[in-house]
Amino acid sequence: MYSVDLNCDLGESFGNYTCGLDEEVIPFISSANVACGFHASDPMVMAKTVALAKANKVCVGAHPGYPDLVGFGRRNLNASPAEVKAMVQYQIGALKAFCTAQGIPLCHVKPHGAMYNMAGRDAKLAEAICEGIQEVDPELILLGLSGSEMLKAAGRKGLKAAKEVFADRAYEEDGSLVARTKPGAMITDENEAIERVIRMVKEGKVTAITGKEIQVEAHSICVHGDGPKALAFVQKIREALIQEGIQIAPLREMIKGNS
Amino acid sequence: MYSVDLNCDLGESFGNYTCGLDEEVIPFISSANVACGFHASDPMVMAKTVALAKANKVCVGAHPGYPDLVGFGRRNLNASPAEVKAMVQYQIGALKAFCTAQGIPLCHVKPHGAMYNMAGRDAKLAEAICEGIQEVDPELILLGLSGSEMLKAAGRKGLKAAKEVFADRAYEEDGSLVARTKPGAMITDENEAIERVIRMVKEGKVTAITGKEIQVEAHSICVHGDGPKALAFVQKIREALIQEGIQIAPLREMIKGNS
Amino acid sequence: MYSVDLNCDLGESFGNYTCGLDEEVIPFISSANVACGFHASDPMVMAKTVALAKANKVCVGAHPGYPDLVGFGRRNLNASPAEVKAMVQYQIGALKAFCTAQGIPLCHVKPHGAMYNMAGRDAKLAEAICEGIQEVDPELILLGLSGSEMLKAAGRKGLKAAKEVFADRAYEEDGSLVARTKPGAMITDENEAIERVIRMVKEGKVTAITGKEIQVEAHSICVHGDGPKALAFVQKIREALIQEGIQIAPLREMIKGNS
Amino acid sequence: MYSVDLNCDLGESFGNYTCGLDEEVIPFISSANVACGFHASDPMVMAKTVALAKANKVCVGAHPGYPDLVGFGRRNLNASPAEVKAMVQYQIGALKAFCTAQGIPLCHVKPHGAMYNMAGRDAKLAEAICEGIQEVDPELILLGLSGSEMLKAAGRKGLKAAKEVFADRAYEEDGSLVARTKPGAMITDENEAIERVIRMVKEGKVTAITGKEIQVEAHSICVHGDGPKALAFVQKIREALIQEGIQIAPLREMIKGNS
Repeated sequence: MYSVDLNCDLGESFGNYTCGLDEEVIPFISSANVACGFHASDPMVMAKTVALAKANKVCVGAHPGYPDLVGFGRRNLNASPAEVKAMVQYQIGALKAFCTAQGIPLCHVKPHGAMYNMAGRDAKLAEAICEGIQEVDPELILLGLSGSEMLKAAGRKGLKAAKEVFADRAYEEDGSLVARTKPGAMITDENEAIERVIRMVKEGKVTAITGKEIQVEAHSICVHGDGPKALAFVQKIREALIQEGIQIAPLREMIKGNS
Repeated sequence: MYSVDLNCDLGESFGNYTCGLDEEVIPFISSANVACGFHASDPMVMAKTVALAKANKVCVGAHPGYPDLVGFGRRNLNASPAEVKAMVQYQIGALKAFCTAQGIPLCHVKPHGAMYNMAGRDAKLAEAICEGIQEVDPELILLGLSGSEMLKAAGRKGLKAAKEVFADRAYEEDGSLVARTKPGAMITDENEAIERVIRMVKEGKVTAITGKEIQVEAHSICVHGDGPKALAFVQKIREALIQEGIQIAPLREMIKGNS
Repeated sequence: MYSVDLNCDLGESFGNYTCGLDEEVIPFISSANVACGFHASDPMVMAKTVALAKANKVCVGAHPGYPDLVGFGRRNLNASPAEVKAMVQYQIGALKAFCTAQGIPLCHVKPHGAMYNMAGRDAKLAEAICEGIQEVDPELILLGLSGSEMLKAAGRKGLKAAKEVFADRAYEEDGSLVARTKPGAMITDENEAIERVIRMVKEGKVTAITGKEIQVEAHSICVHGDGPKALAFVQKIREALIQEGIQIAPLREMIKGNS
Repeated sequence: MYSVDLNCDLGESFGNYTCGLDEEVIPFISSANVACGFHASDPMVMAKTVALAKANKVCVGAHPGYPDLVGFGRRNLNASPAEVKAMVQYQIGALKAFCTAQGIPLCHVKPHGAMYNMAGRDAKLAEAICEGIQEVDPELILLGLSGSEMLKAAGRKGLKAAKEVFADRAYEEDGSLVARTKPGAMITDENEAIERVIRMVKEGKVTAITGKEIQVEAHSICVHGDGPKALAFVQKIREALIQEGIQIAPLREMIKGNS
């Protein structure tokens, strides 16, 4: 039987500022990447988001980012591997405290925004992040892009890792995402996006932007809850997956014996 | 045999800024209150401070403060009990990650500055802090002022708690510290300070500012490493204690069966 | 002829976070209190907000707050008068740079949230704020609550000051606002609120919560643009004022020769 | 007669943290680059630093940086030109408020750390900074590296600009600084450094790391006050300059009719 995880960034509100339709999207996902106070969130938001995930039986992962609240962690920052390792450990620990306090495990780690992108291309950053995770809790699963330096580093370090795919993004032949600045980078037709995702899950294949068939492994699909349109798409993709006989399964089940 | 812990605030540097003679003072203390990034410190400083404590076999405690870096956590902030609970859990978790990564336990929690003072007088804040600690790790020891609302709340909650005394401060009859703004608040004579501390440890008594003998329990003495003079006093007080046959013991040993 | 200013807090978005219906509310107001990056806003938001005010011919004022982004500047902070003076000068200067760059004057200063409330009751804080304003630009108008320590300090210092009234708040006999925690603090009936405001503008009188008639001077009415309901009320109050023959006039015109 | 300005970064303390020997170095310099709260400093430190500069008759310039306190503004940050323009205007305005409050002019702007380096190589960033400065005050002088994109952008925009040289750094043939990571980047011999500086001021020439003579214009020499050794070198270089008949002159005099 086929199965796949649905992961979504949650808990990105901050103080007086609300961001994301967390309560609306959470019934449809299986893993939540929870912001840890550096690029978004604050201690109160983290406590509430962990409670929301617990109530909805959704797995909680840490979503560490660069300390750039005004830039939402989306701006590249030239921090050293040692600095990135320390900021990842700090954020994982902070979120884990709320999980422990509420009696649920912390399951995975998915770096956010610019950290995700920079570590996807930089082996030293990627290794620093993997070491940081492993030292804090060797059972944590790294969630990243198939073929990225992060997943390669996890392989070298023996860290459990799960591969995520994107329904709305085109792929290069090497399995990397087509840069948003290039034409054709976004899959704007929802039905095409859903068909591609189903094929990735069932056949492990996707058509690259060049037209070539490439192999891709899909443990998790990245979805968004940042607006009504994104929310409707999550429901649609979930229904389509289930209709195709694909089970929505938490990350931990997806990567059993997979490390 | 008499014994007492010596606790000191450590790890208060931040980025490019150095603060405190951490490496010089650490050989003389038994417990380090390590700043957690809100009133001072950053992830790199925390990683280094935990490593320093490990190398010196000093027990590590969390030193959570208000999110007020420019005010060094010394300015009262009207945060709600729920907010304070969340910020304490966040900071404990962040520091614990570095302890876990380096294979040492997190032993205690001592709120910093304005949080220490406000929670010492406000039962609701004190309970919020105790709950926050207990939910993250029920083995953690709260370190606070004898007679304060924090220690009372710990008692009600069944949280382990240790009482700290101050060598350089005068006491009111009720066991509270004489406010720094009042004349006579500081014990400026070093020998008098040391004699008072020895008596607190051995006899459980101290002379209040009114002249009255009061009872005081001393699990730990608060010392400082923020300058050459403070450093010299730590050495002096340590030597005097040992000469009096008082053993310097980590906090965990001081409060066995004491919760 | 009667006239009154309508002031509203604007520019409280921050980075990725949107807050307030600035573009919708600005056609209906005459003065904008623009956040300066301490309790809300960032440099990009400030540049855009000043441009929006310029395009709508709305007077710009600085809305300095405590450095407490996560608490939105609403939590009391025990900063010294010297610290508050410096943070007010910093924020006024920062906003003034955007005004100068875009060729419009900075007209007034209205402290935000906890700073407004604390300085309203504390003469030393109030004087520090007035001094801070006056040193940076003696033509700036302080906007504050009638009868507050801020307005008293402005009087002593010779700083121009304008008095604001609140349509949706009840008044104590001494002209202060009834605390939100007390029953009857909010005027929930919109028509009653509008009638009260019209009377304050035309007769300089309002019925206190005790039933007693009190005198109140109304240079400006504080309105809100933080939601559709607030927005509708601004339109309604504006229309009612105009129908009563009351002109909506910028703050500078309201306090001519009034300092 | 020969003349040159001596510029030094000042006012980089923050809250409880002290950084730099400001009071010791200020008698020997003619221009102070004052941090503005983003990479270092806070409103109280800015107020004190402006007062110190005023008392020592030293010209005050803004030293804007990236919003990266923990990284001291030394880490490259991928902010857009529009974002950098806004953060420069914000910081200039904030510092100017303290200058106005104390009755002295703001004279120049020297971007700090990573912003200085990135804008030195990126024409769009450089133009954004020049536009930002010019819009706030067209009389401000940009202080930057000879041959850098910042100085080229100032030329295109008609912004006054002054060129600074470094006593302790080797130069490439194109007038850029040899990267610190390359051997020979630093001029470690103090006498050699001083001789080089005197030749730059008097002859407008320096020997590049390749051995080739290159032309260099020296309006200002960058010196440091961050430790006793740096301080001693400032005194030494100042004395050597005066002995050579070179006058220490403020930046504004150095670039008269020079824009």
